[in-house]
Amino acid sequence: MLQLLLGSAHLIGREALKYCTKIPLPICRDSLIIHLMLEIIFLGTGAAAPINDRNLSGTAVIRQGEVFLFDCGEGTQIQFRKAGLRPGRLRYIFISHLHGDHLFGLPGLLTSLHMAGCHQQIELFGPVGIAEYMRLHQQLCQFTLNYSLQVHEISETTPAVLWQTTEFHVEWQPLSHRIFTAGYALVEAARPGRFDVARADQLGVPNGPERGRLQRGESIILPDGRRVHPEEVLGSPRPGLKMAYCLDTVPCAGAEKLAANADVLITDSTFPHVDAEHAHATGHSTAAHAAQLAHKGGVQKLLLTHFSGRLTQDDLPALVAEARAIFPNSEAATDLARFVVMPQD
Amino acid sequence: MLQLLLGSAHLIGREALKYCTKIPLPICRDSLIIHLMLEIIFLGTGAAAPINDRNLSGTAVIRQGEVFLFDCGEGTQIQFRKAGLRPGRLRYIFISHLHGDHLFGLPGLLTSLHMAGCHQQIELFGPVGIAEYMRLHQQLCQFTLNYSLQVHEISETTPAVLWQTTEFHVEWQPLSHRIFTAGYALVEAARPGRFDVARADQLGVPNGPERGRLQRGESIILPDGRRVHPEEVLGSPRPGLKMAYCLDTVPCAGAEKLAANADVLITDSTFPHVDAEHAHATGHSTAAHAAQLAHKGGVQKLLLTHFSGRLTQDDLPALVAEARAIFPNSEAATDLARFVVMPQD
Repeated sequence: MLQLLLGSAHLIGREALKYCTKIPLPICRDSLIIHLMLEIIFLGTGAAAPINDRNLSGTAVIRQGEVFLFDCGEGTQIQFRKAGLRPGRLRYIFISHLHGDHLFGLPGLLTSLHMAGCHQQIELFGPVGIAEYMRLHQQLCQFTLNYSLQVHEISETTPAVLWQTTEFHVEWQPLSHRIFTAGYALVEAARPGRFDVARADQLGVPNGPERGRLQRGESIILPDGRRVHPEEVLGSPRPGLKMAYCLDTVPCAGAEKLAANADVLITDSTFPHVDAEHAHATGHSTAAHAAQLAHKGGVQKLLLTHFSGRLTQDDLPALVAEARAIFPNSEAATDLARFVVMPQD
Repeated sequence: MLQLLLGSAHLIGREALKYCTKIPLPICRDSLIIHLMLEIIFLGTGAAAPINDRNLSGTAVIRQGEVFLFDCGEGTQIQFRKAGLRPGRLRYIFISHLHGDHLFGLPGLLTSLHMAGCHQQIELFGPVGIAEYMRLHQQLCQFTLNYSLQVHEISETTPAVLWQTTEFHVEWQPLSHRIFTAGYALVEAARPGRFDVARADQLGVPNGPERGRLQRGESIILPDGRRVHPEEVLGSPRPGLKMAYCLDTVPCAGAEKLAANADVLITDSTFPHVDAEHAHATGHSTAAHAAQLAHKGGVQKLLLTHFSGRLTQDDLPALVAEARAIFPNSEAATDLARFVVMPQD
């Protein structure tokens, strides 16, 4: 089932499979695996204008069945469909900035969700102006939605944490591009510590659902009346997964804050470093810049995206090589490529 | 060369090839063939939301190297590229109405023309509101263009003829949809009458460039000093080609005016007639409605498009059969299908 679930996706986290196989069977059910992972699907990996086999920016992150969409360039709804994503699962949309290649797919996607009969509430985050953008579409285009769209505008004074639940939060930082641009990080809450099987055996906890309850933070009472508390069998809490999304930008402090200790960093790698001057002039990063950011931040995995239309698919290996010289665990995204991020412990 | 030129395109006009082969060789040069034809490329043939292999509304008409684009749903720029159309050739854009499936590809297409370095002036026609739509994009999205975009808004009081040159004009009529909608017709000016070879022989006009000059409306002087005027060797002027574009609409007087005597009619055929009630409620036509319009207008060829997402490609033959029962020369468009329209005489 795990293979089926992951399909041809790439696994991130060297210990991922080991972790899964180590979990006692009653705990290692599919739902737990899904609960522990983030799936990333690149819907479009191109900058500025679409070219053959490379659509405009859009990245879906799936967490516990909910879809978080980062940017929505033209054609995102088509790619969303091709990726097999279900419209009813989309809950959060984060727009980095109001340049068309990150935005112009949004009205069409929202309209299609309406036509697909979606009823979930959608939280839309983006720079100031996005509410007016939506309003104009509603006014001119008979843009009615049968679901609630909550628009959250971001300005320089917006607090870092945009959205907080008990399970995760999303934070933002200003990036450095030609217009106001927000980078984002999806940060999961800490998970319970590692289950100490030897200690549980020692305490006489039976091999059964009691161990699952302890793992979930509940105390149990043994048949002999003794009470066992979770902290007796669990190690210290383990950090949840962190995914950072930084485009479009030149290297900047905001990107560094977001990238810090991320399990996966998705970032602007528009040009090779030989074009660093042009990258700077247009507000973009090179593959080397991306790798420096990952290295400095102690990131686990770097995924390069947002490639200039001047670069063909054949140019990407060189771009990856440029990044790997600085940060070995780098990879180039391609349209509809899937990556699975799992905890390292 | 003709075969090469037409590729796998469909020829419209039963007499087309006969006409070509009948033209004296010096006149039947490639450029003349191109001058005499309209090429139609369907960029998207779907209604409402894109589905597999069916993008949203966009139809390119190529006349003497210039591209006229009718509607611009999301993804049109991608299809434009796939069709091999050159951005520098796009001169006219006609938006039927401000529903997203006809409009949301426009900002991306215009941005990409800028990035492709286009410098031609582009005439954009569409319902009132389209100027504000463009203005908002310019204001919010750093939407700068290195070419001149002339926006022509259409309201109920706009005269029928929108654009007039010596070679063609474009006219509009109001259609009947859920919001204000314009149908369009591209109408070529009359061509010179048929060249009377026997009469030219009789008058002693040599087999040479003189015949071309007469055909183009110039008088010539023969070696013996006699003057020959075009009207002596040409029949009465022949009508130019007419292409009518009517979507989205229920059957209405405006569509009838546009369709009258068209060589080719491209029209809304969103549903089969069994769904006529739903079609009416949503402001659309059925295949039978489309065929009735073509029949009433004395049209040469009917091209059905704008198919509901409920219809798969496998459903289209039945839709065509429904139309053919009323108007035999009907065909269903598919994405990237090309049709060539040539004069009948």
